[in-house]
Amino acid sequence: MSLLVVGSVALDCIRTPFGVRERSLGGAATHFSVAASFFTDVAVVGVVGDDFTDEDAAVFTERNISTENLQRVPGGKTFRWVAEYGFDLNSAKTIDTQLNVFADFDPQLSDSARRSPFLFLANIQPTLQREVREQVDARFVAMDTMNYWIERTRDDLLKTIAVVDALIINDAEVRELAGEVNLIRAARKILKLGPQMLVVKRGEYGAALFTSDSYFATTAFPLEEVFDPTGAGDSFAGGFMGYLAQADRIDDSTLRRALIYGSVMASFNVEEFSCDRLRRLTSEEIRARFLEFKSFTHFEP
Amino acid sequence: MSLLVVGSVALDCIRTPFGVRERSLGGAATHFSVAASFFTDVAVVGVVGDDFTDEDAAVFTERNISTENLQRVPGGKTFRWVAEYGFDLNSAKTIDTQLNVFADFDPQLSDSARRSPFLFLANIQPTLQREVREQVDARFVAMDTMNYWIERTRDDLLKTIAVVDALIINDAEVRELAGEVNLIRAARKILKLGPQMLVVKRGEYGAALFTSDSYFATTAFPLEEVFDPTGAGDSFAGGFMGYLAQADRIDDSTLRRALIYGSVMASFNVEEFSCDRLRRLTSEEIRARFLEFKSFTHFEP
Repeated sequence: MSLLVVGSVALDCIRTPFGVRERSLGGAATHFSVAASFFTDVAVVGVVGDDFTDEDAAVFTERNISTENLQRVPGGKTFRWVAEYGFDLNSAKTIDTQLNVFADFDPQLSDSARRSPFLFLANIQPTLQREVREQVDARFVAMDTMNYWIERTRDDLLKTIAVVDALIINDAEVRELAGEVNLIRAARKILKLGPQMLVVKRGEYGAALFTSDSYFATTAFPLEEVFDPTGAGDSFAGGFMGYLAQADRIDDSTLRRALIYGSVMASFNVEEFSCDRLRRLTSEEIRARFLEFKSFTHFEP
Repeated sequence: MSLLVVGSVALDCIRTPFGVRERSLGGAATHFSVAASFFTDVAVVGVVGDDFTDEDAAVFTERNISTENLQRVPGGKTFRWVAEYGFDLNSAKTIDTQLNVFADFDPQLSDSARRSPFLFLANIQPTLQREVREQVDARFVAMDTMNYWIERTRDDLLKTIAVVDALIINDAEVRELAGEVNLIRAARKILKLGPQMLVVKRGEYGAALFTSDSYFATTAFPLEEVFDPTGAGDSFAGGFMGYLAQADRIDDSTLRRALIYGSVMASFNVEEFSCDRLRRLTSEEIRARFLEFKSFTHFEP
């Protein structure tokens, strides 16, 4: 496999001002892997219960995503997240979280998974992320995290951050992790924690990429209809990592394109519930939107 | 004169986490005209009291900004704004507003001012904006406004918006004016009110330009030190309008560069109190930062 992701596979219940879906296949590893699958071979490491149906599994298999490392716990229930969005759609209000089989998640990796050159550690407990990272002989490792771990397991989180190449988090998390309001200064502080790069997700405002000696930023795709923001950050990371794995090189111009492809995938993801939009997406649509980014950000000096 | 601006000239008192300035030359017309003066000839229409000193006047004259249309009211006091910023620097808390001579402001325009080809109506009462607009035979007119007028004099504001070419406001104002949370849909609604273009100022996130058939957006300059955000929006508008007046053409690629120059001028303006940074700015520094925008937003398709 080119790209391995470890993270949650979930059965969400999502309410937005535009509709409700009681049972919505979600989870960071799901959104990430579906987005990345347009660029490269992907395998997902995770755990589900036996309420995870063949129809759910089809979301992975129809995109040729390997579920060899997706454990099924007999008698168990899949991780469930119940959330609601208001009209501004910027932040979800969590109504309920049921960890279920995810509470005892012990990632098991096949031999081929351990040889993946690209690895993404989605937002899970930092010790678990580190355990997986240590088992994989990857040449490029990126991770996500969230305020929960920044506040509760900071030391553990810092140990994990120290052993990855890229941290991909949102701007509020950047500021919280660094204890610094100014995003640019916060980014400089985070780069001293170990990673060679920091990718900042800024929602409707776009994304930015910091390394010790470079900076790149893009605005987001101008969407008139945002239907369900769930998984935007994970599909962004999926596009970013998927494109890097496909290019199989990490240089400045490749990273810039990867940030745009991440933005493209996030913009499609939020157009419908769950992975609905991505399931019928084509490579031509992805490329067309990538070129639209070029046209609405380009200027002649 | 190439570019005429009508708006406030003020003596601010500004507190930020980094310092206090009890008497800070400010006002929309001040920040606008100083920024624009790097690109073209500028004249300012406004009113001050006799607490406005020769030292204050020097800020205009040293940049060759015409004050022929700046009225001085004997015995009057200049408009005063007392404000405070917290650590996030995103929004000012108004402590006190003293309109003083600005309360009875009746703009008087010289003959040459009436022939200005470019006109900017800074944030003042919409009826005053319209009065000035009607007196000037300009080929391109832009305006600013704020939530105060959107909420209190909406009908009047809409009449003024209907007779300008460009509306230059911040994103919260776009949403409030349109009554629409989604920025893109809000922009479409505003373009139906009359202006051929809408420029959206997004603070630390950048700026966007909408016309009926085009879209352009940029991120902001990555500043590690924001000292005083006062006048950022006005110096943005000054750079934008100043560049258009200098280019003396309104086409897509000129407008894109104008948006970048606006962003450049705003980024310098916030580095110090009042117009301090702009007073010692050079054209070379402006051009260099413009090219930096190119380098941190450019990607190869």
